[in-house]
Amino acid sequence: MSVTFRAAVLHELNQPLSIETVEAPALAAGQVLVKLAYSGVCHSQVMEARGGRGPDRYLPHMLGHEGSGVVVEIGEGVAKVRPGDRVILGWIKGAGADAQGIRYKGRNGYINAGAVTTFNEYAVVAENRVTPLPPGVPMDVAALFGCALPVGAGIVINIAKPPPGSTLAVFGLGGIGLSALMACKLFSCKQLIAVDVEPAKLEMARELGATAVIDASRSNPVEEIRALTGGLGVDFAIESAGLTRVIEQAFDATRRFGGLCVFASHPKSDEKIALDPFELICGKRILGTWGGDSRPGHDIELLAGLYRDGKLPLASMFTRRYALTEINAALDDLEHRRSVRPLIEIDPTLG
Amino acid sequence: MSVTFRAAVLHELNQPLSIETVEAPALAAGQVLVKLAYSGVCHSQVMEARGGRGPDRYLPHMLGHEGSGVVVEIGEGVAKVRPGDRVILGWIKGAGADAQGIRYKGRNGYINAGAVTTFNEYAVVAENRVTPLPPGVPMDVAALFGCALPVGAGIVINIAKPPPGSTLAVFGLGGIGLSALMACKLFSCKQLIAVDVEPAKLEMARELGATAVIDASRSNPVEEIRALTGGLGVDFAIESAGLTRVIEQAFDATRRFGGLCVFASHPKSDEKIALDPFELICGKRILGTWGGDSRPGHDIELLAGLYRDGKLPLASMFTRRYALTEINAALDDLEHRRSVRPLIEIDPTLG
Repeated sequence: MSVTFRAAVLHELNQPLSIETVEAPALAAGQVLVKLAYSGVCHSQVMEARGGRGPDRYLPHMLGHEGSGVVVEIGEGVAKVRPGDRVILGWIKGAGADAQGIRYKGRNGYINAGAVTTFNEYAVVAENRVTPLPPGVPMDVAALFGCALPVGAGIVINIAKPPPGSTLAVFGLGGIGLSALMACKLFSCKQLIAVDVEPAKLEMARELGATAVIDASRSNPVEEIRALTGGLGVDFAIESAGLTRVIEQAFDATRRFGGLCVFASHPKSDEKIALDPFELICGKRILGTWGGDSRPGHDIELLAGLYRDGKLPLASMFTRRYALTEINAALDDLEHRRSVRPLIEIDPTLG
Repeated sequence: MSVTFRAAVLHELNQPLSIETVEAPALAAGQVLVKLAYSGVCHSQVMEARGGRGPDRYLPHMLGHEGSGVVVEIGEGVAKVRPGDRVILGWIKGAGADAQGIRYKGRNGYINAGAVTTFNEYAVVAENRVTPLPPGVPMDVAALFGCALPVGAGIVINIAKPPPGSTLAVFGLGGIGLSALMACKLFSCKQLIAVDVEPAKLEMARELGATAVIDASRSNPVEEIRALTGGLGVDFAIESAGLTRVIEQAFDATRRFGGLCVFASHPKSDEKIALDPFELICGKRILGTWGGDSRPGHDIELLAGLYRDGKLPLASMFTRRYALTEINAALDDLEHRRSVRPLIEIDPTLG
């Protein structure tokens, strides 16, 4: 089956994506053709489009790593999904074939793609990047199950596992940070402190149950957190602002002798974090995370159950919705913090 | 009982210690008076004497944190040791009272001391800084049980716990590094790589069982370790060189997805380590350690058993021995890497 459709294509770093018609390749073994309903936008796409990951040897290429849609066709050997299945698309590897090497045919030659892309009407994706959508999760919210939710909630559920009575701080209230905040609410925390520079996001955090909020554009969050925790710092600091400076702040705001800082940020590729080694000697810990240690098959079921129980008010993140043709506005809004988690409505009729 | 004796006293940063007569205070509850046999010298004393820990508000003060000796007198409530007991003195807290606030009387006023000091003929120490010497351990070697051995071996035994077949690298072959190396030999490692800038220490590491040695003054240890491990890096990197740059190298030499760097270094107080956050995202881990996570009561028994079994050839570290009056030469030699672990012979007749 030959499919031609519209896709957002990055031809050059620091230039707008171009919406153009491309043709999907025939499916190889282990690949799945999906018609997209929705895509989320992650800070990673801003970094990729703006050169924050360094030189890009895959240009031109397609983008996007969290979405939802319906399976159209499956390649040889695919057992996880069947045509007609509603699915989540995400970048974290789950069960199934890791069938990469996907190239679309464009006007002037081939367009590269990773094992999953979502800023396009259709996508050929590897079997291990799709997960059947559990019942009771709307298709728009489902897009968040591809990245923001498993990473943010995964940091809390899989890594921090805060004992009851813990003190926590979340730095950076985008899709990952708010997902982490919602997950923290499941753990009977004593204090849950939200840090951002946008008053609207801090207000959202308060509504979601933060016990204190700190506007880091107005005060020093490390000092504020010390003051809120009797001088100690928090048991757990979760960071998802995308900036080395904020990772350092989150580490500094963690308490000695057992405190843990977990960061999801993947900052610009030439930037390092500077840590005081004595703080590590004194038992502060820091961990980076690859997808919140999520195993999609297992974690998506768990998170869907929590969603159905009303514990994860995820739709609140969709402060702005965009058509696929507005993808550049979505990236700009995310870059400049005008949108919490942009939702791209590609074919809402599938939902 | 009033005791006057000779002690090395630091009056001013970056000046030699002065050997002078001091008088011990009467024992408070929880304190122990010990006559010293031997003291080791740790890089920490070099840092303290040279101002590497920043301004020193305890001047004048006494120094040293690993030693051996015989108990002379015990304060009220001390149950762990009795007069005549041979003991290890060390800085890591064990069982017993933490009776601090020790001040000696000097020529021109009081001289401060921590809960343990060992560059002196006698010491008043807190009960929790002495441990009865297990049988079969000579008094000179016993000094190493106060710091170098429990920290270096503790990193391996308590923290890394390398599974059989692991690849390890040890950066910095002083007392802690060589202790770590000896402990690694207990774990059936596949590769054990020693890194230093002194050929004599590298030769010693080879004799102790290192499978490869790297002279970091002649080649890049991170590249060498990559080459030795098929491009991956080691499963465990243990760092004890005392330099931020070497902590960074040890981290860089660790493999992604599960590799662990543990550092014992406490570098200068104004220096930070710079880490690539993406490497942490990719599952490299880094931990500082406070005394190798040792619990002196438990760990000293364990290590003494290994010593008696011939598994810890510790005396090889004493490449130079010094009288207490040569304490400044010992510090200089350690600072300039002319001595592996200086041994101060204070009263060898006790041994």
